[in-house]
Amino acid sequence: MFAPIYLDHNATTPLDPAVLAAMMPWLEGQCGNASSRHEYGRRSRLAIDEARQRVAAAVNAHPTEVVFTSGGSESNNLFLKGAAGSLKPGVLAVSAVEHPCILKPAAQLARQGWTPRIVAVDPAGRVKTEDYAEAVAAKPRLISIMLANNETGTVQDIPVLASAARGCGAWFHTDAVQALGKLALDFRQFNAAGVHAMTLSAHKAYGPKGAAALVLDKRVELQPLIAGGGHERGLRSGTENVPAIVGFGIAAELAAQRAAELPERLLRLRQRLEQGLAALGATIFGVAAERLANTSYFAFRDIDGETLVGKLDREGFAVASGAACSSANPEPSHVLQAMGVAPEIGRGAVRVSLGAANSETEIDQFINALQVTVGRLQGLTAVAV
Amino acid sequence: MFAPIYLDHNATTPLDPAVLAAMMPWLEGQCGNASSRHEYGRRSRLAIDEARQRVAAAVNAHPTEVVFTSGGSESNNLFLKGAAGSLKPGVLAVSAVEHPCILKPAAQLARQGWTPRIVAVDPAGRVKTEDYAEAVAAKPRLISIMLANNETGTVQDIPVLASAARGCGAWFHTDAVQALGKLALDFRQFNAAGVHAMTLSAHKAYGPKGAAALVLDKRVELQPLIAGGGHERGLRSGTENVPAIVGFGIAAELAAQRAAELPERLLRLRQRLEQGLAALGATIFGVAAERLANTSYFAFRDIDGETLVGKLDREGFAVASGAACSSANPEPSHVLQAMGVAPEIGRGAVRVSLGAANSETEIDQFINALQVTVGRLQGLTAVAV
Repeated sequence: MFAPIYLDHNATTPLDPAVLAAMMPWLEGQCGNASSRHEYGRRSRLAIDEARQRVAAAVNAHPTEVVFTSGGSESNNLFLKGAAGSLKPGVLAVSAVEHPCILKPAAQLARQGWTPRIVAVDPAGRVKTEDYAEAVAAKPRLISIMLANNETGTVQDIPVLASAARGCGAWFHTDAVQALGKLALDFRQFNAAGVHAMTLSAHKAYGPKGAAALVLDKRVELQPLIAGGGHERGLRSGTENVPAIVGFGIAAELAAQRAAELPERLLRLRQRLEQGLAALGATIFGVAAERLANTSYFAFRDIDGETLVGKLDREGFAVASGAACSSANPEPSHVLQAMGVAPEIGRGAVRVSLGAANSETEIDQFINALQVTVGRLQGLTAVAV
Repeated sequence: MFAPIYLDHNATTPLDPAVLAAMMPWLEGQCGNASSRHEYGRRSRLAIDEARQRVAAAVNAHPTEVVFTSGGSESNNLFLKGAAGSLKPGVLAVSAVEHPCILKPAAQLARQGWTPRIVAVDPAGRVKTEDYAEAVAAKPRLISIMLANNETGTVQDIPVLASAARGCGAWFHTDAVQALGKLALDFRQFNAAGVHAMTLSAHKAYGPKGAAALVLDKRVELQPLIAGGGHERGLRSGTENVPAIVGFGIAAELAAQRAAELPERLLRLRQRLEQGLAALGATIFGVAAERLANTSYFAFRDIDGETLVGKLDREGFAVASGAACSSANPEPSHVLQAMGVAPEIGRGAVRVSLGAANSETEIDQFINALQVTVGRLQGLTAVAV
């Protein structure tokens, strides 16, 4: 079977074998409904409690602060709409580089009387201090700024941003989906700085699809998106996905361990990659900012990103153009637009996101393939390196 | 390991081995993000498309009418809140025996200007014709009546109810979560009668937790609960749970096959069970109505249901008291209250819900255990059978 080299870990990651091993008993055996008052139900409840402890420990939160959901998009929607549902409409501040699952709910809330305030970013993708200060001065009731961007990998200084908003009375949320396993996460420290909620997702960190969390300061009142049987302290009803939640617990634990060593190794791989990219004449986005160690986002002048991704796919390399989540709708990346990247450059954007299994050899193979492909696309028989 | 006999299939079912086998390649291998434009992404997209075709075929719907969600509770919330979000507030008619994931969203909508109209049921749990006619006369904009009740198994005549509402201009939804694999489902036929949406869930039909659907007439405009990357035609954003969706496809296919023979076999088992229950003096709920063949809901005078479930659990039988989904909140069943069952009887309610693997021997063992347990609880040394 054709098995391209996988360089798209910000889109999704393979299951860690230890995660799958932990899930298997819950897939193979009788897996009860965790609300049932019999042996199978109790076993499932205990497994969920244990997973909740693991996820909490991985990000230094209290287990009762962890609300399980089905995915990062759900967690982000739950925070924004759920908190908005408990407040009077007002200003809602989000950065211009948020994921669509923050920007779209913000647009939905605009139709319910809220006033979205889109905070500008600098050319490296960092929230602009002055514009953020102005947004805070507008007394927002809700603020959501992502910790690390899925496209560029740009990391925001969340404690500083949350601290700056302390006086304004807003609930401050951060989408940390891309950060789990790539940065050390400490919700207690975040919370002390003024962060009230944080989104995590299992499948971005070698865990299963279908499990995620909203880590939530219990002072924040939320209306559930999914109301019903009262699961997850009434914040998210529905039969718990026991196998996926168990897998998330193990994945979170591994992610916390991994955050201590993996980024350093991936950083070396990325340096090797970006030396190659620079030699080929690529523009690399966000280099002036702190970035996730695994992410490199770049473009070649006059080469369409979609086309390059397609050619590389046929050569055996799985990479992304723009954010995978919006690839169904091929528009120029809103992230690059917000960074002020010219459209003729932005249209060329290709993202490589490295993972635990990638090697130096794979990077070298990728650069070689890129050299040939870019050369062909630029109509040259050879490119000087 | 202590492995009680499982008689709680309306709470959740074990994975069919064929379902798990179909899921495994997506758990063990590199499972891409279905939005990614590379080999792994395309394979995932194809797997989802195929699963959508299987689910659609199983209920005689068109694949484009199938919206995948994370669970039945989400599908029900998506229909009610999503449709309400596209309409002016008005009357919303639901039966008194709906699952909490219909009743709670209805209560949330009441705070947004909607007027819930709770339709009464008769002593067997069937929607009362006169009261339904009055509700329809109130010109509801939304109607939701479940196909088969999770507690009693009572089946509503959905085509008749939908037909009766045709003139009123409402969107008509039915929660068919408990029906998949237990009744033959034909969305085309339902749709012709005036049903516009139907909820299905995989884990109630030997499929995985974490996958479900809202089957939806495309004339119904819905606001997404989870907005973002635009997945599922913009109705449900979030990275698709590929393994679970693949499993749902196979489970739905098996459910459609099973609906032709399993109910008959389970009906014979239930007759055996209910002969034993009657001999022990149990009251059996809903017997005057058409019921799901697998479900028996009963009570013994002066015996608390929770207590009986606990004793039976220790004897090695996994059964439910009231609905598992609300067992975290032990109140008398709202279903039995709506049926006019006296509280002193309703508090004794215990549900047995049979599944594909149950046998006559297990029924006989259960009745024997029940005889002993009930005898003890009634303070007798023996119960005449």
